[in-house]
Amino acid sequence: MPTEISTLGEFGLIRHLTENITFQNKSTLYGVGDDAAVLSYSDNQQILVTTDLLLEGVHFDLTYVPLKHLGYKAAVVNFSDIYAMNGTPRQITVSLGISKRFCIEDMEMLYAGIRLACEDYGVDIVGGDTTSSLTGLTISITCIGEGEKDKIVYRNGAKESDLICVSGNLGAAYMGLQLLEREKLALAGKGDDIQPDFSGKEYILERQLKPEARRDIIIKLREAGIQPTAMMDISDGLSSELLHICKQSNVGCRIYEEHIPLDYQTAVMAEELNMNVTTCALNGGEDYELLFTVPIADYDKVSQIEGIRLIGHITAPDLGCAMIDRDGQEFELKAQGWNPLK
Amino acid sequence: MPTEISTLGEFGLIRHLTENITFQNKSTLYGVGDDAAVLSYSDNQQILVTTDLLLEGVHFDLTYVPLKHLGYKAAVVNFSDIYAMNGTPRQITVSLGISKRFCIEDMEMLYAGIRLACEDYGVDIVGGDTTSSLTGLTISITCIGEGEKDKIVYRNGAKESDLICVSGNLGAAYMGLQLLEREKLALAGKGDDIQPDFSGKEYILERQLKPEARRDIIIKLREAGIQPTAMMDISDGLSSELLHICKQSNVGCRIYEEHIPLDYQTAVMAEELNMNVTTCALNGGEDYELLFTVPIADYDKVSQIEGIRLIGHITAPDLGCAMIDRDGQEFELKAQGWNPLK
Repeated sequence: MPTEISTLGEFGLIRHLTENITFQNKSTLYGVGDDAAVLSYSDNQQILVTTDLLLEGVHFDLTYVPLKHLGYKAAVVNFSDIYAMNGTPRQITVSLGISKRFCIEDMEMLYAGIRLACEDYGVDIVGGDTTSSLTGLTISITCIGEGEKDKIVYRNGAKESDLICVSGNLGAAYMGLQLLEREKLALAGKGDDIQPDFSGKEYILERQLKPEARRDIIIKLREAGIQPTAMMDISDGLSSELLHICKQSNVGCRIYEEHIPLDYQTAVMAEELNMNVTTCALNGGEDYELLFTVPIADYDKVSQIEGIRLIGHITAPDLGCAMIDRDGQEFELKAQGWNPLK
Repeated sequence: MPTEISTLGEFGLIRHLTENITFQNKSTLYGVGDDAAVLSYSDNQQILVTTDLLLEGVHFDLTYVPLKHLGYKAAVVNFSDIYAMNGTPRQITVSLGISKRFCIEDMEMLYAGIRLACEDYGVDIVGGDTTSSLTGLTISITCIGEGEKDKIVYRNGAKESDLICVSGNLGAAYMGLQLLEREKLALAGKGDDIQPDFSGKEYILERQLKPEARRDIIIKLREAGIQPTAMMDISDGLSSELLHICKQSNVGCRIYEEHIPLDYQTAVMAEELNMNVTTCALNGGEDYELLFTVPIADYDKVSQIEGIRLIGHITAPDLGCAMIDRDGQEFELKAQGWNPLK
């Protein structure tokens, strides 16, 4: 039997969801339970702050996204932004707007996902706000992290001749989303006992439903002594993000289609859907891979790191931003990624 | 002519709203435009973080709340939480979920209010997220501030025999809300040219529509050398907040009805509406006054500060929490303030 949230009220629900939270970071002094959380960072660390607002029907569809996965993802996408500054996430605040459709057990699942992500990445939940909403679920997470002075990486530091690198592979999360949307349509109105067959497509589904932030890549770069000149995470698509870096760094770029990393399942799914897999990799969002540039002098070091692919190089600004396809033709890069306000 | 938001898109809108932002705090190193903002606080300062989620139809009604006022209030309520820790607000992030109903000019008004509040209180806008929403307007603001080590005031430090103090007066914002609701009903369907007459009620309207955070009181307490033992801001009503302090401090309290500060307009409006003005002061929310306790040894100092009223004292926990009315009768305090999840 689902338990109505009104039986606990605002403060009861917050207590229920946040009880037994133990802190993993010495920078966390005081968490949930007062007007504000209290943190303490040392003079050597700079503080990073990022925030994401997720709205039901715009950013997620609960007909196929389990609440625990949603909670995990909502937290991880914020961690990803902190790693993309070459930092380490330490604390989050979690604000929820909850419509009458949801029960306490639903919020327990959502919070279980958020807490799991926090455990995995060593992040503390230190506060938030919980309220009712007239329609749907609203999730607003703010993440606070730290970065060493002089080690923080911005988007605006790419230099001519720098190498352009990406972690992992691209387009998988978008293909996972397309698959989920297709099955949702196919199964609409057919009853709950018919379940879609996702065998052989587990990887792209996981990339969509339970993405990870690339902490491992940040650690590998540090261990290799590589300081990227520019970096960001790929949430709106490679094209769009690369244009951000080039614009803010006042440079151009050339990337090579044949070097864009793709997973086998991504390619298979694109073919099934009659889509161009390169287009999916360029414009599909939510991969949360890292896009970064390194000086050409780091070529040997960076090319030895597993999970990092060199896809091109930075040019003078007047050369513009383009991809060279497998036939050697140049195509101008355009920001066709997901734009929530178009 | 209203301009559709889609003409700018997400990044264009953010640029448009945040251009020309200049920073007022040396702790703000980098603001909008990267994966995260970058801040730098000194070792002597602890960092305070608070967040608020405001949803249209739940927290505000745009039929009578101007967008500029809404922006101002949305920022100020967060500043109030930082002051309530005896801290100073320094940065905010602003996340907006915007439905198709809104145009660019609407968002300019909202942002003008947020920016005005930031100017007034010396706070920097350093980031946020802007996205579409299916229904209504969503505003999520996170505020970061600083407090001196050993000067931060929690809710849990109230001691037996401490004096209970409040700033300003109570119930005014709630009476302002009742007035707006009454006029909304009275004017429904009567056309835009009929405007309600609010003369003589300006003060309670301003308390509802454009509240201020009590920075002045925090400064006065510091100047007088008074360190409160417990403090919070009154957002859900005096009763509810006092119960928080007593529960978290493990104490009881006695407050005196005759000492609860009321404004004349609050009393007049309560009478017009046939409401008990004390009940409004105890349970009406959104006053954003400060509720705090000080050691009895500070009696002389605190009673000389203009704008602070002593309303009672802290007792042993077994005496419970009660108000003594004008006839000397005791009534147990109950948390009947606004509960968004009931």
